[in-house]
Amino acid sequence: MRKSPARSLPVQRESAETTDDRTVVRSVELHLEAFLRDKRTGCDGIDPDFTEVVTARLTEFVTRGGKRLRPLFAWWGWRAGGGNSIGPAVDPVLRAVSALELIQACALVHDDIMDGSRTRRGAPSVHAALAAEHNVQQWSGSAEDFGESVAILVGDIALIWADDMLMQAGLSRGQLARVRGPWQMMRTEMMAGQFLDLYGQARRDDSESSALNTARLKTAAYSVERPLHIGAALAGAGESTVAALRGYGCDIGVAFQLRDDLLGVYGEPESTGKPIGDDLREGKRTFLMAMGARLARERGDDAALRVIEEVLGDPDIGATKVQAVREVLDDLGARGAVEKRIHHLAERGTARLGEVVIDPIAHASLNELAIHATARDR
Amino acid sequence: MRKSPARSLPVQRESAETTDDRTVVRSVELHLEAFLRDKRTGCDGIDPDFTEVVTARLTEFVTRGGKRLRPLFAWWGWRAGGGNSIGPAVDPVLRAVSALELIQACALVHDDIMDGSRTRRGAPSVHAALAAEHNVQQWSGSAEDFGESVAILVGDIALIWADDMLMQAGLSRGQLARVRGPWQMMRTEMMAGQFLDLYGQARRDDSESSALNTARLKTAAYSVERPLHIGAALAGAGESTVAALRGYGCDIGVAFQLRDDLLGVYGEPESTGKPIGDDLREGKRTFLMAMGARLARERGDDAALRVIEEVLGDPDIGATKVQAVREVLDDLGARGAVEKRIHHLAERGTARLGEVVIDPIAHASLNELAIHATARDR
Repeated sequence: MRKSPARSLPVQRESAETTDDRTVVRSVELHLEAFLRDKRTGCDGIDPDFTEVVTARLTEFVTRGGKRLRPLFAWWGWRAGGGNSIGPAVDPVLRAVSALELIQACALVHDDIMDGSRTRRGAPSVHAALAAEHNVQQWSGSAEDFGESVAILVGDIALIWADDMLMQAGLSRGQLARVRGPWQMMRTEMMAGQFLDLYGQARRDDSESSALNTARLKTAAYSVERPLHIGAALAGAGESTVAALRGYGCDIGVAFQLRDDLLGVYGEPESTGKPIGDDLREGKRTFLMAMGARLARERGDDAALRVIEEVLGDPDIGATKVQAVREVLDDLGARGAVEKRIHHLAERGTARLGEVVIDPIAHASLNELAIHATARDR
Repeated sequence: MRKSPARSLPVQRESAETTDDRTVVRSVELHLEAFLRDKRTGCDGIDPDFTEVVTARLTEFVTRGGKRLRPLFAWWGWRAGGGNSIGPAVDPVLRAVSALELIQACALVHDDIMDGSRTRRGAPSVHAALAAEHNVQQWSGSAEDFGESVAILVGDIALIWADDMLMQAGLSRGQLARVRGPWQMMRTEMMAGQFLDLYGQARRDDSESSALNTARLKTAAYSVERPLHIGAALAGAGESTVAALRGYGCDIGVAFQLRDDLLGVYGEPESTGKPIGDDLREGKRTFLMAMGARLARERGDDAALRVIEEVLGDPDIGATKVQAVREVLDDLGARGAVEKRIHHLAERGTARLGEVVIDPIAHASLNELAIHATARDR
């Protein structure tokens, strides 16, 4: 018997890549390459060392890969909002949504400094690569300090060039005026989410509500809801369409983060590209861990609680300790409860799309992206 | 006998504050306060902790003080470019030029992280204050890491809000279109200058040309030339006026940095608000130090060269070592030569203004600012 579409959403297929998504991703990458090439030429006039070290490194980082989820959500926001898939309006919109990848580059480069992460996308993180070059060249001073300082600048450059790319995208005056609000909100929400993450860790805040609040800002608003909002604003979509897209984005975005939390504990390095237990080592107080701690307390299971608390921020974490926490979270039912919540959010989010009449291809693609974001293994 | 104006420029008076400059500075501060108050209200909807910690700290930092030189140069660029001093065009322009203080806030907050500076404007630097709060509250993890991480975010927020402030200033479409070029160039040049500073220190590059290149980007372009360019662009000034203002800005800006270099060695903490020898402790390879090293080599004065080289980056520097390097730079003639160059740049820069017809009050104010920037003691 064929399952109903909504019920089977999170397991329907492995990848959301359709021919259309692939085309968008390829266009985004070409626009990013062209923009950074232009910036590189422009910066040669400023200083060749700056071009060589900073611009080249940012280009390498941005073009190395990534899921391009934010531009994809923004593109389908545009299409769902009534924007065309062909014609002269397309390239400016693709350029504009590509700029989201530069904001993301800033977020990742700065995030890796804050978390002390040595790897990203299967390669050394920017600050680690710069520190390594400092060591190889036997430069003066601390290699770690040099790496972090220049990486702060690489992130800053990505942040300001995101604006440059949006402003130079070739949007109409009306589009620029409409996109300003969600663009500004998105950037501030991203920073606020990142702050709450750090603040929660510092204050040992292990409440589920705090973890959900961070997920809502850092992932849902920044990565899904606002990109959709930006796309819809570019298309000049009506209020009810914008509201439905944002509702979808908020639910799918939180589900996306909960999936990320599960992957942080249960993910395999060959899929995620990150060392095993990386999130645990960094002491990330995720919803999964918060729920595990609460369930352990409710059961009076001190041994389970100790496993959860001791693994957070443990610098010497390895496969054995990760396996122990996996089993504890399984036994407590935390993993199952998070899976259930992801499923519920994915269902509710995709149902929001049914409340308005949007382009059927956009509708199908957003359903696919919901699966991709919430049922992925990397 | 009365000295000629050009000849006596750098010693004519102590402060460039005229009633007009004071009015501009006061307006800039009121606009910054109003903008940050609005942002604070807007961010309460995002998260109260974010407002409490990040927004409040940025507001405190931005309103604590500073010379407001960049908005002043931009304002006089506007007036020199033909902009009015009264009427409805004034407030949008004042708001737009105030945004430069937010870019500067990012530069200073991130700079202090990179340099490991514990103080700024006579108070703890942002990352040091955050680390101290972490200690007082006995939060979890490393206080230093927390301070630096949140300070990275405070700087990022300042950078994106600078854009928000420019976009919300109420400028006309034509003004927004004209200001985009110099605004984008200024931000990239600022980052490039900061990078060259770090790169020069790492590579122990003690050439005068490298120090001048950094001064050209980090101070001249970012702090003087581009603010003037932005003001002139807002006014829709003609090419020859823009060229004259930029020529003035480049010379005065380099002279400003050379004065800063001298204050880094010869300045007194009660005037500069920085600990004695701070630049030396940080290992800043300034034009002054580069010239000292070259002169010592030319004379074969190994003892002098050793004093210069050993003091750079010395963490234990105190009044005695600072006094030794002061005497060495005096004896070598480096201090005198830098003073002479500042004087020459100030003369040439102010002479550029005579090549075009600009508003006489703007002309007089730019002459005053040239003195303020190049003959200050703090």
